[in-house]
Amino acid sequence: MSQFTFENPVFTTYAIAAALMVLKVMGQGWMTVYRMLRIGAGYASPEDLRAGLINRAPAPSQLEVNDYVDRSRRLHRNDLENIPAFWAAGLLFVATDPALGLAQGLLYGFVVARAMHFWAYATSKSHEVRATFYTIGSVIVIYMAAHTLWVLIGQ
Amino acid sequence: MSQFTFENPVFTTYAIAAALMVLKVMGQGWMTVYRMLRIGAGYASPEDLRAGLINRAPAPSQLEVNDYVDRSRRLHRNDLENIPAFWAAGLLFVATDPALGLAQGLLYGFVVARAMHFWAYATSKSHEVRATFYTIGSVIVIYMAAHTLWVLIGQ
Amino acid sequence: MSQFTFENPVFTTYAIAAALMVLKVMGQGWMTVYRMLRIGAGYASPEDLRAGLINRAPAPSQLEVNDYVDRSRRLHRNDLENIPAFWAAGLLFVATDPALGLAQGLLYGFVVARAMHFWAYATSKSHEVRATFYTIGSVIVIYMAAHTLWVLIGQ
Repeated sequence: MSQFTFENPVFTTYAIAAALMVLKVMGQGWMTVYRMLRIGAGYASPEDLRAGLINRAPAPSQLEVNDYVDRSRRLHRNDLENIPAFWAAGLLFVATDPALGLAQGLLYGFVVARAMHFWAYATSKSHEVRATFYTIGSVIVIYMAAHTLWVLIGQ
Repeated sequence: MSQFTFENPVFTTYAIAAALMVLKVMGQGWMTVYRMLRIGAGYASPEDLRAGLINRAPAPSQLEVNDYVDRSRRLHRNDLENIPAFWAAGLLFVATDPALGLAQGLLYGFVVARAMHFWAYATSKSHEVRATFYTIGSVIVIYMAAHTLWVLIGQ
Repeated sequence: MSQFTFENPVFTTYAIAAALMVLKVMGQGWMTVYRMLRIGAGYASPEDLRAGLINRAPAPSQLEVNDYVDRSRRLHRNDLENIPAFWAAGLLFVATDPALGLAQGLLYGFVVARAMHFWAYATSKSHEVRATFYTIGSVIVIYMAAHTLWVLIGQ
């Protein structure tokens, strides 16, 4: 029987957490757009120096790396290094038919850890604070993948 | 009952759109390879300066950023910021059992928007044109994730 | 009938391969962390220059690109360009109900190709060696997506 239906509360939990992380990743792109437009800097392509609705006062310095914009890009890159693996590991984990409480703790725990990582990175908190939330999220994804392998080949 | 079978035309629509986007992402890697080999520039690793079948006339300048090659890498990065989220959001959206017409509009609409984004970026069209197609694709992914959350917790 | 249950040995094969690739991607992040901490260089954010448990002797040069650390980041980027597409294409491929032997060859073949790509890149083997394993992995993902399209619209 397929675990991937909303009659299964573990799959519903996964779907809520995964959908929230979709919004997180897509929102990070819009944060970069907002920051680029707000300060008119941190552009990535030569053609962005053409005058237009988006760029009313072009200058070559607009193509230089700008930390305000690049911080959002680094956040985005960090998301891409963690969230697609979460979508995959979470789906496999659901297929193993885990206990609902465990699934809620891991899946919602990842969402909270990534929200805290965003807060720590966006506000330039110390490396130690940022690394703590990164570690929690990473360990959850690793646990779900290892749990799946254990169920399938370790028993 | 699982929605994830080809007896469900919404899942079939998703599978076609998702498979096309797999080919898009993988093709972008090959476009970077083609451009690197064609002009012998834009390499990323020091060992690529060793002479061999791929690089017959090594020179240190081959490790510099080259816009012809880097444009393909930027396209690739933009794909990675949008397409994995599309795969995840689309699968969750299918699980909500949406109307077929809506699903076809959103899923094929995303494919068309990304094809147009590729055209606009590859040919260095203005930021405004590129941003328009980026926005359409992004809004579709955000809609599918929000629709899933609405079905699961908003009702 | 859903193919996505562990009663289907093709899905079990996919789950094992996909979980191994989750561990690969997450492990790459930890390799970057290990290399940054070991040599105290290759940091990416200005706030990482603050003294603390992670960085006991800050210096501005720690923000410069460092090949030992950047090699791990390039490996990570290459993973992100290939592995999420593998998760998506593999899942679609499973839905087409392929022969078990073919699925095992492709899914485990991808895992082996990426392991060899890691070895070639991490040890700075020649571009030709690295490109060979990249190509094998890429062709497998492309084949699985094309196979899915062929089953759904080509017949």
